Parts: sequence; structure tokens; C-alpha cells
Amino acid sequence: MDSSPSAPDQVLEIDALIIGAGPVGLYQAFQLGLQGIQAHMVDALPYAGGQCVELYADKPIYDIPGFVICTGRELVNNLLRQLQPFNTEFHFGQLVSQVERQKDGRFQVTTERHGRTVQRFTTKTIFIAAGVGAFEPRKLKVEGLARYEGTQVHYEPQSASRFAGSRLVIVGDGEQALRNALQWCVGTPQSQPALSVTVLHRRDAFSASEETVAEFRSRLVAGHIHFVAGQISGIQADPSTLSSLEISVAEGPPRKLPVDQLLVLQGMSPKMGPIAKWGIAMERRQLLVEPDTCTTSEAGIFAVGDVNTYPGKKKLIVCGFHESVLAAFGAMPIITPGKEVPLEYTTTSSRLHKLLGVTQPESR
Amino acid sequence: MDSSPSAPDQVLEIDALIIGAGPVGLYQAFQLGLQGIQAHMVDALPYAGGQCVELYADKPIYDIPGFVICTGRELVNNLLRQLQPFNTEFHFGQLVSQVERQKDGRFQVTTERHGRTVQRFTTKTIFIAAGVGAFEPRKLKVEGLARYEGTQVHYEPQSASRFAGSRLVIVGDGEQALRNALQWCVGTPQSQPALSVTVLHRRDAFSASEETVAEFRSRLVAGHIHFVAGQISGIQADPSTLSSLEISVAEGPPRKLPVDQLLVLQGMSPKMGPIAKWGIAMERRQLLVEPDTCTTSEAGIFAVGDVNTYPGKKKLIVCGFHESVLAAFGAMPIITPGKEVPLEYTTTSSRLHKLLGVTQPESR
Repeated sequence: MDSSPSAPDQVLEIDALIIGAGPVGLYQAFQLGLQGIQAHMVDALPYAGGQCVELYADKPIYDIPGFVICTGRELVNNLLRQLQPFNTEFHFGQLVSQVERQKDGRFQVTTERHGRTVQRFTTKTIFIAAGVGAFEPRKLKVEGLARYEGTQVHYEPQSASRFAGSRLVIVGDGEQALRNALQWCVGTPQSQPALSVTVLHRRDAFSASEETVAEFRSRLVAGHIHFVAGQISGIQADPSTLSSLEISVAEGPPRKLPVDQLLVLQGMSPKMGPIAKWGIAMERRQLLVEPDTCTTSEAGIFAVGDVNTYPGKKKLIVCGFHESVLAAFGAMPIITPGKEVPLEYTTTSSRLHKLLGVTQPESR
Repeated sequence: MDSSPSAPDQVLEIDALIIGAGPVGLYQAFQLGLQGIQAHMVDALPYAGGQCVELYADKPIYDIPGFVICTGRELVNNLLRQLQPFNTEFHFGQLVSQVERQKDGRFQVTTERHGRTVQRFTTKTIFIAAGVGAFEPRKLKVEGLARYEGTQVHYEPQSASRFAGSRLVIVGDGEQALRNALQWCVGTPQSQPALSVTVLHRRDAFSASEETVAEFRSRLVAGHIHFVAGQISGIQADPSTLSSLEISVAEGPPRKLPVDQLLVLQGMSPKMGPIAKWGIAMERRQLLVEPDTCTTSEAGIFAVGDVNTYPGKKKLIVCGFHESVLAAFGAMPIITPGKEVPLEYTTTSSRLHKLLGVTQPESR
């Protein structure tokens, strides 16, 4: 069902793989670009920005040097524009599932989406800029529910006629949850509607836009959509089929809600995911790095930004920017051994001007 | 002759003194502001910006995170605007001449201008953000010349009638040198002209603006200004008076040039100055700091930006920004002992919003 840009059996041989396309990951790619290295980036989200766009896209940040105020989205857009000269390759909507060191010292990296392999890399270096982790749909913690994922339980909107004619329960209170309820109660030109649509949220209050909530409430009044204020506390199922949900409500005994399809749209939350299992030394759930190069306990794997720690570490974006400078310089002896890279200035270096694709300013 | 804002005998009692108002010094003040600390800044130049405006005011910088391109002046102006909420006090045109630790652990700091005390501070902490040093007029290295400084030898334009009626020699080829030559050959409403004006530069080519050079050349043709291509190799003087300069020229024996007043305007160059003598541990002319707090070998004295060094140090502005975060946190136990400062985010912290003077964004 996924249309991956590359076949999974094609291995990309690269110099540098950056995990996480948040602001620090983007600046890491820029710093590698200044070293003449084209980076590849993987992110679980379908777009760049990480936390900055997932959690505070339109909220103001006041402590980025030189920006009196900027939103998360503005910062990310600026960093993307700055990165443009370097032809960074983005691999979005993918999680890194496996990292293994080859005999030649390089790493084999595999990414996946919904449990299916999407891309394989062979890379000389890895830069983990994963922040608080990969953003994934916030899941329900209900015993026995996981086994129906992909058949009757879904954490992403489904296309085409997936829910046509079925008793659909949607969990969530945001824009995406209510929009899906509205869509499936009437159907689309491509699909019949669901047999019934029930929205489940712990209280009768919604965080979607005013317009969407109004439309949703008028459908409730008309009886086209049902609403239950409560939380799923259990399920009824024979091993192969989920048949109903047990809903605990504010007052009285739990209710039973028949269900054919369950669509959970509760937003995204970050998960550290498999990184914690790669055998890299950690301290309080952070990757421990050498402060002079941001190298982890695994030579060739660097960690920058909120995901790392070292004495004095402060979790601020401006700190991650500096760390990615140190990591870029730290990685060069691995990427191009024996070729020392001098520190040059973008203001004066003609080598850097060439890389940046800018005209050299007149010398005075 | 100097009009100091404060009398030298008035001691300012402060928490934090920043030496150097370049980009890193300015961001250091911002980071201290976020900690609730009002900083005082001293700089040898008469304005903020340091190297950034002295050496590349109009030249492009490409590697400041989030800025595809900005000039040194733009970066400094942005940082000044960002700093505005914090009422930083600037002490410009002053050199720190003395630093002594008091019995109570604080530092007595004295600044001077032209060898005269301008300001005294008692401060809990010092942040050295002096970059490549204090920018001072580039001096002539000619044996015996120094003793006439202030009477017959000057490194800054002089006001009023200082050169009226005297045989004036001006050394330099830039805007300031030629403009002074043009001024003194005709005099001003406030002053008679010099008796004669001779410009001395090693070759017959000038770096001033086209307009100024054209005006200068027409005065040369008219015989109002003289020009000598050469360099000062010696002086003739009786102990109390400098009488003539020995000029070595491209061909032939040295020339003798009578002189009453010598004005040297060869631009500015950075000098580390007395910092090197404060007894702080150094390595290759840089101040050695602990990487976790940027503290020097003297507790309470921090060093950030190009002036410091530690394992992995890269001399980039973005590195100095991070260092000033570490130094601000490192200084708080000295400034407000026993009061732990939690790391908060400018996006969400109402304490920081209050300090920044911004309205708290609506919570979602």
C-alpha cells in the first residue's frame, strides 16, 4: 500500500545519515554540507521540523540568537532555505528500525513504515538528532487491543472504502478526529458511508476548530453521528474478531459499544523507539556523548540536540546548533580519513562560497 | 577632555560585567537577562559589534543558524534588538585596565580611556567575550616615537585648533586619513588650517571612497596637500621635541621630512591587552575554560567566544552562542547562591515571558 520511492532491496551507499529532521538535524545537514558532505535524513513525520512543527508550529520562540521572535515553523523554514544549496535527501515517514555495524566499519541501516521495510542504507556515519524521539500516533493502552491493529484498529485515517457499511468508532477530540467522523457519516464520492459513526472522548468538549465543532454538533443533533463521553476500559472479542468495546463512563456501570472498526486519532507523541536498543551508552534516557565531538559510545555514531547528554548539557535549540558543528568536524576523520579539514569562514572562504553556490564578495 | 558618564570615584556594584560587545557578548547579556540578571558591558570601541562591525560590517555571513545570509552589522543589530528587554548598560570606548579580587570574592574592575580611569565596578562575575582582543588604533612601530604620543603624535583625529599653523604629517590611505588631510589644509570655521599638510603612505594608491580620493588628488595637483610614498624608518628629535621624520622610499636614500604634528590613521587592530596579564590559565594565547560552564581558572571569571579554548573548540559565532548559555547557567550559583535556576523555555515559561516583556501566548 505504501509507495516507497526506492525498492527496499536497493541499498543506498552514503557518507552520513541524520536521524531526525528537527531544527538541530537540519543544521547538522547544513554543517555537513559546509564540509562538502551530502547528508541523507530520515524522519518519522511526513515533513521536516520535528517537535518544532509538531508541538509549537505557531508558538513564539524568543531565544534563537538574532531572532527577536520566531515561531517553530518559521525557524524550520529558515533552516530549510539555508540548507538548500546542499541537496540533502529527505526520507520522510520512516522509522529507523535497525542499525548494524558491518565488517568494514560502516553501518547497515534499515527503515520501516507500518512494520514494512522501506529503505536500506550503508553509511559511514550516523547523526542521531532525534530530540524526544520519533513522533508516532498516540496509542490506546487497552489489554488485548494490539492484536487487531491493521485489521480492525487503526491509528491513521484510512482511504477509500475501508469503513463503508461498518459500525465505526472514532476516538479523539481534535480536528482530524471530527473531520473523519463527518466524512464517514456521509461517505465520499469514492466511498459509501459507514453504517454508524460514534465519537468517543473522555468529555463533551472538543479541541477542533470552531467551524468543525459546529458542523459536528449539528450532525449530533440530527442523529447522524453519536457521541459517548468515556474511555475504553476493555474489549469483547473472540480471538479473530473484535466485537465490542467496554466504555467506562463518569457515572454508573461501564457501557458496551458494538464495533466493527476502531479509528484512534489522538494526535502524535514522541517515542524514543528502537534507538534505546542499539547498545549505545545512555544516562537518564539520553545518549551519552563526548563533549568535544558529540560522538556516542559507538564510534561513527554521533548524537546532537535534546537526545544527547554530557556535563553541563542544556536542552535548548541553540545548544544543539553548536553540537552539530562539533559533530560535523568530529565525523570528517571517519568520512574522509587522512584529509584534514581546516576551519574556514563563510564570509571569506572561496571553497565555502563554491559549496554554498554564492558569488564571492569583492575583497577590500 | 573626556566626558565620562560617571565620575571615576563612583563604584558601580553589579552582578555581571561582560567585556566585549561583539555578537557573543551581546548574546551573553541576553542569556543573563533570561536568568533575571542585568549585565553591564564594556567595549573599547565606541559602539556594539566588535569584529563583526569592525572587520565585516557589510560582508555576508552564511552560517548563522536560520539566516541564509546576513551581514555582520545585521547580525549585531538583530542581537541588540533581541537584548532590548533587559536594560543592559553599555560602557563604550573603554578598556578594562585592572581586575582584582576583593576579600569578599567579588572583583574590582577598572576601565580606562587614553590612560585615564573612566569607571570602577565591583562585580560578582566577569564574562570575557573579547574575541581577538580590544580594537585599538593600529600604531606605528618606530623607535623613540612613543614618547611623543599625546603631544606631537596622535592616533585619533583631533578637534579644535590642535594642528593650526603646524607642519602636519598624516599617515594613512583610508577615508579617515584623507578626510583629515582635506580638513586641515583649508581649516574649519572653528580653526585655522595647518601650515602644511603631508600625507604619507607606502604607495600612491588609496582605499578611501572615489569621491574623497578625487577631491584629495585635486588638492595635490593644486599644491595644497603634499604626498610622499614611503614609510617612517626613524626620527630626529631632541629629547623634548620631535623635529623630523626619516622616510625610507622605494628608490634612493631615505628622505627627511620636517614635522610638528604627526597624525596616524591606519585603522583599528585587535589587541588582547591586559587580559593576558590577569593570571588566567591560557593555552596558545586563548583562555582555557571548563567546557561545561566556560569558567576560566579563576572562579567567577568566564570566557566565551573566540577568546576561549577547550577540547574541540571551533572559532565560530554559533559556538560562542552556546558557550554563553553554559556560562550564564555556570554563573548563577555565584550570583544568587543557593537559588537553583531551572531550565525553562521562552515558548512556555511565564517567568521568562515576564522578563522578556511579552504577552503570554494562549495555551492550547
